[in-house]
Amino acid sequence: MERRNIRLLIAYDGTNYQGWQRQKEAPTIQGTIEGVLTKITREAITLTGAGRTDSGVHAWGQVANFSTFSPLTIPKFHQALNALLPEDVMIRKVSQAAEGFHARFSSRAKVYDYLIWNTPRLLFFRPYVCFIRGRLDLERMAAGLSRLIGERDFSSFQSQGSQVSHPVRQLYQAGLWRHRFGWIRLRFKANGFLRHMVRNMAGTLIRLGLGRISIQEFEEIVKAGERSRAGEMAPARGLYLRKVFY
Amino acid sequence: MERRNIRLLIAYDGTNYQGWQRQKEAPTIQGTIEGVLTKITREAITLTGAGRTDSGVHAWGQVANFSTFSPLTIPKFHQALNALLPEDVMIRKVSQAAEGFHARFSSRAKVYDYLIWNTPRLLFFRPYVCFIRGRLDLERMAAGLSRLIGERDFSSFQSQGSQVSHPVRQLYQAGLWRHRFGWIRLRFKANGFLRHMVRNMAGTLIRLGLGRISIQEFEEIVKAGERSRAGEMAPARGLYLRKVFY
Repeated sequence: MERRNIRLLIAYDGTNYQGWQRQKEAPTIQGTIEGVLTKITREAITLTGAGRTDSGVHAWGQVANFSTFSPLTIPKFHQALNALLPEDVMIRKVSQAAEGFHARFSSRAKVYDYLIWNTPRLLFFRPYVCFIRGRLDLERMAAGLSRLIGERDFSSFQSQGSQVSHPVRQLYQAGLWRHRFGWIRLRFKANGFLRHMVRNMAGTLIRLGLGRISIQEFEEIVKAGERSRAGEMAPARGLYLRKVFY
Repeated sequence: MERRNIRLLIAYDGTNYQGWQRQKEAPTIQGTIEGVLTKITREAITLTGAGRTDSGVHAWGQVANFSTFSPLTIPKFHQALNALLPEDVMIRKVSQAAEGFHARFSSRAKVYDYLIWNTPRLLFFRPYVCFIRGRLDLERMAAGLSRLIGERDFSSFQSQGSQVSHPVRQLYQAGLWRHRFGWIRLRFKANGFLRHMVRNMAGTLIRLGLGRISIQEFEEIVKAGERSRAGEMAPARGLYLRKVFY
């Protein structure tokens, strides 16, 4: 039988999972999908994901690939996966990929959304949003966002203990949308993200929006290259891996 | 010390609770608030709630009262309650009530909202909404809603095994709002509700909206007075006790 490289487009509600990456004792997205694929193909399947989302982080457009000798057709794969996966993990698309396609290394850019609910009192939807009680100044936040765009060293927004050798990333897009009833969406598109980079940027932008730091201080933080100067990391539950570009 | 009748306005996320009513082994809203009140007052407190919401049902405007000899001021009660209650239960208001005030028997009307998300694919927000994949015809549903308004025998929408002697209720308002992105809100205001009445009405309206029954059949169901003819009960997670009128 022929070996095929299969590509999946995946959405998930991360609330009840310990992130993407397989762990022995804890439920993870990778582990859950691999378990189902192994059932379907009767092979030991290893999935490669585009982004290793953390515990509680959601995804609408995660991409993963795996290689298999199974003769199942693409539509059958799609059907079987969604039939056997739990309700909070959904396969949006299945396709055959080129032999050399690698969900992580082939990716050219990713988009993350960060969802904020700016309301004096939050009660519902807590697992899906970062709740901010104090009034956010969105113009200040938009000004901060504009200072992030471009190619730069993002060390200031990288979590400690995870320094990579090349902390330079190209941020193509950093936008803000205000929806009704106090919902705010931040969107970041970059050729790659450092560990916790979106959550650290969101946390610092929130500090800026609350008036705890000035736009000058924000600029200094961006330039400093030290995580310790940035704001508190925003919670995982507001973060969504939206789309991966190849 | 003087005995006072204290009134609470309560909001809660019902996801992690087995409904309002105290149970020995399971977490409930009543049990949780009573536990905190007993700590604060050092008395054995019994709360009376306006509506006994079921497991998974949410509330924005639940009302309850209790009687106490505690000398604590009203603002101190408010502060201490919110400080000691978990994040998913919030006291919106504390006030002193007249001696004869009874959260359940004094109520004149209640408003319930039922939240539907009409989208081909739901993944997020599942604990807070009833997800309907098929396209709902909102005009048909609005026509159905108009047939429910008024004083009538609502036995058709009462869950079996819970027949009350007087199944006549006055439904003052039955409305439908369409929000963006496929969110739909049903609202019902009545002088009282039979067991599962809102969820049974919502389930039957959804059947109507999906075209599984005609408006004539809907009218017959309303008149029949038999639960067996109505549609499947809609899930608890879409239901919100919105407001109680006194």
